[in-house]
Amino acid sequence: MAEDFKVTPWEVTGDIDYDRLQQQFGTAPIDDALKQRLSRYGPLHFMINRGIFYSHRDLVQILDRYDNGGRFVLYTGRGPSGNTHLGHLMPWIFNKWVQDTFGTEMLFQMTDDEKFLFKEKLDLTDTSAMAYENALDFIALGFDPKKTRIILNTKNIDVLYPIALRVSKKVTFSTAKAVFGFDDSTHIGQIFYTTLQSVPAFLPTEECGEQIPVLIPCGIDQDPHFRVTRDVAPGLGYPKPSQIYCKMFPALSGADKMSSSDENATIYTTDSPKTVKKKVGRAFTGGCVSVEEQRQKGGSPEVCAVFKYFYYLFEKDDARINETAEKCRSGAILCGECKACLTEKINVFLETHQEKREKAKDVIADMAYNGFKW
Amino acid sequence: MAEDFKVTPWEVTGDIDYDRLQQQFGTAPIDDALKQRLSRYGPLHFMINRGIFYSHRDLVQILDRYDNGGRFVLYTGRGPSGNTHLGHLMPWIFNKWVQDTFGTEMLFQMTDDEKFLFKEKLDLTDTSAMAYENALDFIALGFDPKKTRIILNTKNIDVLYPIALRVSKKVTFSTAKAVFGFDDSTHIGQIFYTTLQSVPAFLPTEECGEQIPVLIPCGIDQDPHFRVTRDVAPGLGYPKPSQIYCKMFPALSGADKMSSSDENATIYTTDSPKTVKKKVGRAFTGGCVSVEEQRQKGGSPEVCAVFKYFYYLFEKDDARINETAEKCRSGAILCGECKACLTEKINVFLETHQEKREKAKDVIADMAYNGFKW
Repeated sequence: MAEDFKVTPWEVTGDIDYDRLQQQFGTAPIDDALKQRLSRYGPLHFMINRGIFYSHRDLVQILDRYDNGGRFVLYTGRGPSGNTHLGHLMPWIFNKWVQDTFGTEMLFQMTDDEKFLFKEKLDLTDTSAMAYENALDFIALGFDPKKTRIILNTKNIDVLYPIALRVSKKVTFSTAKAVFGFDDSTHIGQIFYTTLQSVPAFLPTEECGEQIPVLIPCGIDQDPHFRVTRDVAPGLGYPKPSQIYCKMFPALSGADKMSSSDENATIYTTDSPKTVKKKVGRAFTGGCVSVEEQRQKGGSPEVCAVFKYFYYLFEKDDARINETAEKCRSGAILCGECKACLTEKINVFLETHQEKREKAKDVIADMAYNGFKW
Repeated sequence: MAEDFKVTPWEVTGDIDYDRLQQQFGTAPIDDALKQRLSRYGPLHFMINRGIFYSHRDLVQILDRYDNGGRFVLYTGRGPSGNTHLGHLMPWIFNKWVQDTFGTEMLFQMTDDEKFLFKEKLDLTDTSAMAYENALDFIALGFDPKKTRIILNTKNIDVLYPIALRVSKKVTFSTAKAVFGFDDSTHIGQIFYTTLQSVPAFLPTEECGEQIPVLIPCGIDQDPHFRVTRDVAPGLGYPKPSQIYCKMFPALSGADKMSSSDENATIYTTDSPKTVKKKVGRAFTGGCVSVEEQRQKGGSPEVCAVFKYFYYLFEKDDARINETAEKCRSGAILCGECKACLTEKINVFLETHQEKREKAKDVIADMAYNGFKW
């Protein structure tokens, strides 16, 4: 059966059926029992509650370990191919909650090599420069500077390479083809790259000389990499990493993933209030063609990009988000009101974020893994 | 037509037809005109004269550049999979002659990553340790410490990786398959590795900010790597490297390449006089089954491993090597005499070499590329 959507670490297209994707990838749902268990550690994060972080591998093992006094390390990352947009912040905000809730150390990997290899037009100088800008946004979210280290692949390659080599010796081209859909025209840098994304999962064990598993909260599009990581781990003497996966942050155009390639459907963390207003103003909604019709028939929050922005990031209160949905369906509010409200919320958030982003410049050097020079 | 020999960077088997290999690879012969030209720079090296270094790519361009006052850099290397044997020294001795004759700087690359990737049983700690031992032998040959830098891939990966990435973006799996004979069962480290072997060819240009070509004197089995290097060079803004290739140093068993895997047919630089005597004593020769028969029919220096050792390394005097061949063919000398003579020559060489090898420990740190710690 031909798929009507495609999700790989480098391409997300079509109308994603997240349940079907979970089946394809073989990940487990975060069901009510698991949600209940998670709520024991503190107030449940709205992204868990709403099924935004919806799927996992071996999360239970990590929690069991934690309950028994064992520690784990958080690992997530960013492929620095452009400016940071709101979609990038979403899983990072969740990571921050995990760090705060479990008091974990965190490794943040910036894959400047990957983006050079997979983006035809980017040079390494571009991706390294973007890594710096993206890191400022990451830091601005408030990660504990004492517990958080930022890896930049080309700068930390001295540590990463020997482990990447060990990974590479366990992965045939056959496997890489099956997992990533490569073919003979794929270049050899792309083929090798996945090894680098495995390494941070093994670094805590390598550094401590004892088995320290990692938990990786990230987009489910990254699962192919971590399937490889999990497959090779036992043979290399490392614990398998656990994953907790989120859905893709929507674009303002209504498409499934906010992409840096469509600038008008993407809100960057450095956008001005005026730009935000303009972009939200042009967003795809679930409204009707006329005010009269909408008052009568109501709108469809299910397909509305503005509503999704509230749902994914800007309205954490469940009662209020339900109220908004109700009002939309009944025709009590119009798209213009929602857009004004979202614009306001985004601009309030960005004003503070941009200040913190400036202050991040003072600590970014301290958070560089092994003290590399940015 | 099925080949009766196979030459790749990782496997040399069968009875090599060097002329045919040259045709297969598309390299050019070092003909009389080129020999004559080379003799202008100083006494012609016996390895050129005897056709041991017998094939090249763009050697003329390097000489033209030199004649016009331009400089080039020497680049050769070693895959540290075991102790150094006499076969490894042969091309290094030639490199030393080139350095002395043209006053060139030299880059010596130790591919500990390669040997880890291509030898099932070796770990990186093994190959790094062997790299140190091999480097001592290289230094013992007398390379100018001020003009010679030793690269160890895992230690210098910070400099090598960004350039390797650029190379990798220009090489598809299709190309790697065609050049190296890879297939779907090849692991992704092996597929990527060739990029690392390209890098030193581009380092002088990268370091100086102007086009500095390299000349690579090495075994012809390495040509597949350098075909890739030459193909990608123009697209990356680097000059194509030139190569000068030698035949494989023979084994004492009479096989085509001295291999570390057959310890008894291999003389290591650290062997004792007694061990050398024993190994040479067991060497394959072109002699007859009895003394009487040999006195009558004579021997065959063409197939004799002992004679080849004289020819390739231990008898530089053309008159004397011809005399030895004559005496063998006429039955005037017996295999025992040749073996005693070769044993003596090897042991005299090794006595001095082993002393220099010890002294190399005092300078090895100074020759480490970018000052890496061994």
